[in-house]
Amino acid sequence: MSYPAPLRFLIDQFSRFPGIGEKTAQRFVFYLLRQPPADIIRFARALMELQDSIIVCRVCFNYAEKTPCNICGDPTRDQETICVVAFSHEVGAFERTGEYRGAYHILGGNVNILDGITPDRLRIKELVERITRSEKKVQEVILAFNPDLEGESTGLYLYKLLMPYGMKLTRLARGLPRGADIEYADEITLADAIKARREV
Amino acid sequence: MSYPAPLRFLIDQFSRFPGIGEKTAQRFVFYLLRQPPADIIRFARALMELQDSIIVCRVCFNYAEKTPCNICGDPTRDQETICVVAFSHEVGAFERTGEYRGAYHILGGNVNILDGITPDRLRIKELVERITRSEKKVQEVILAFNPDLEGESTGLYLYKLLMPYGMKLTRLARGLPRGADIEYADEITLADAIKARREV
Repeated sequence: MSYPAPLRFLIDQFSRFPGIGEKTAQRFVFYLLRQPPADIIRFARALMELQDSIIVCRVCFNYAEKTPCNICGDPTRDQETICVVAFSHEVGAFERTGEYRGAYHILGGNVNILDGITPDRLRIKELVERITRSEKKVQEVILAFNPDLEGESTGLYLYKLLMPYGMKLTRLARGLPRGADIEYADEITLADAIKARREV
Repeated sequence: MSYPAPLRFLIDQFSRFPGIGEKTAQRFVFYLLRQPPADIIRFARALMELQDSIIVCRVCFNYAEKTPCNICGDPTRDQETICVVAFSHEVGAFERTGEYRGAYHILGGNVNILDGITPDRLRIKELVERITRSEKKVQEVILAFNPDLEGESTGLYLYKLLMPYGMKLTRLARGLPRGADIEYADEITLADAIKARREV
């Protein structure tokens, strides 16, 4: 089936979206065809303006509308604690917990030598500069990476790099996730849960 | 987490896409943020022009770039056979088989009284007009609907409506799909496969 060229082009574009195949891309385009024209125009305009309207905070490197961003520029937040994450979309997960009132630093990825992501391609130099040049001494750096091979490598790399600076270095707790079933928990998780057990 | 407004707007827009939730919508927007600006502009422009560049064929009601569409206007195709489908995206499935060289008619949905989709809201009147007014007598109408409740209702409705016109009325074969396992086939499918068995 040869779709009309404008449909074909958009189906191809949507097929490149993460996790989207040809079929879903087709559904997207047929969905869009049914939308009110004014909505489509607004949507397309927002896409056009996306990259111009979004800048990167020059303190934490998160996407923002201004720099310093709402978090880095907020005097009520604890700017002496930095939570280092690989990707900016992970910031949302921490913010939604309501538990964290410190600042962030977005590396832009994990250290992964095999895939060519060497430390110099991440915002590690910028993290060190931020720590050394900050007006208030940074008290704690949370190495908040995924508990997988890439995340552990990144955490270990940063741990070694930052140790000489003398602030507290922490990582996220490991253990059973809420709702887990001990019977089906993997051994590493259960081992972590035993090692880090707490008095009740 | 309050995303910057332009991100928030696009995440909301993508969340309305069929089958897409908040998380996937976020991934889409972060994916777009990483694309070359020229690609985004081209993509957004294609979206803006989508509805203007696509028209509906006045013969078969498929989306097309011109009317009659490439299929209805093709003299090498059998215009005396009409395959009636519920949705235009189903045409692609038939075309990909390479088995069908006739024309199509897109109803725009299935008859579903409970959901308020009465026959007058579909392009059924137009199908009857097409059959009665066509220069060449229509020899066969294939009622090509999904083998589910909605599809069967639609097929039955059209069967009763078109019977008086005297052309051949057919429906798609039922049976085991390629790769099926008899052990796990549902009873209705297996019953269909027995009833419609053929000599080898």
